[in-house]
Amino acid sequence: MKKENKALIQKNKKMKYYFNKTVSGTFEDVIEKVTKELKDEGFGILTEIDVTATLKKKLDIDFKKYRILGACNPPYAHKALQAEDKIGTMLPCNVIVQEINPGIVEVAAINPMASMMAVDNKQLMEIADEITAKLKNVIEKL
Amino acid sequence: MKKENKALIQKNKKMKYYFNKTVSGTFEDVIEKVTKELKDEGFGILTEIDVTATLKKKLDIDFKKYRILGACNPPYAHKALQAEDKIGTMLPCNVIVQEINPGIVEVAAINPMASMMAVDNKQLMEIADEITAKLKNVIEKL
Repeated sequence: MKKENKALIQKNKKMKYYFNKTVSGTFEDVIEKVTKELKDEGFGILTEIDVTATLKKKLDIDFKKYRILGACNPPYAHKALQAEDKIGTMLPCNVIVQEINPGIVEVAAINPMASMMAVDNKQLMEIADEITAKLKNVIEKL
Repeated sequence: MKKENKALIQKNKKMKYYFNKTVSGTFEDVIEKVTKELKDEGFGILTEIDVTATLKKKLDIDFKKYRILGACNPPYAHKALQAEDKIGTMLPCNVIVQEINPGIVEVAAINPMASMMAVDNKQLMEIADEITAKLKNVIEKL
């Protein structure tokens, strides 16, 4: 097997599509903390989906506390859109917050290097690599 | 090389991460049309990012008309979240609308089978497959 093919298969098998950490605190406090850490890495929150409320409203289902934060670092988003005009299909970068048990909350950020694997664009991959490091940092600092 | 490895490499090389179509009409009319087609396939729009306005506000950059619509089919989203609790990092499914020239507008929907490639979960892949067919249909009907 060619070396690059072997590497590709390994990459597919090993790369997790998210970075996560389980922390203690209330759901609301953890959202506040992750929002602050995102801000420190240059991300603003452009969208917010209250999954719990949405599933209640649309399907009358009781779901755990679960929030999707759409984080965007504007200078990087601009560079990404210039490198690859359809990359908006993968923006913003989502960070989820879910309550595992009262006082125990899990945060997970998308790993853009994994979700953008099918995008064949070297320039974009360099940008994705930098954004990935920033998101990883946000999770590590929680 | 093993047969499944060959298939994996082919999949990586060939699968586009979006479905797209360029149509004529005003930017606003095309957004209205795609919103209707999404609704017909069971998707509501949960988030909307006006990329043009965001880049102007945050970076004082003039960018083409570009909108990111976050589309969600609640029963499928619920099934996906039950199968894979971190899949919220890839929800909702984005559909982008961008003006190529006045009166010429491109629409592109994410291909969940491509973006979720790094997710190792058979049950989720079955759900992603069905959602992919629906999004493909939305684009084809434009």
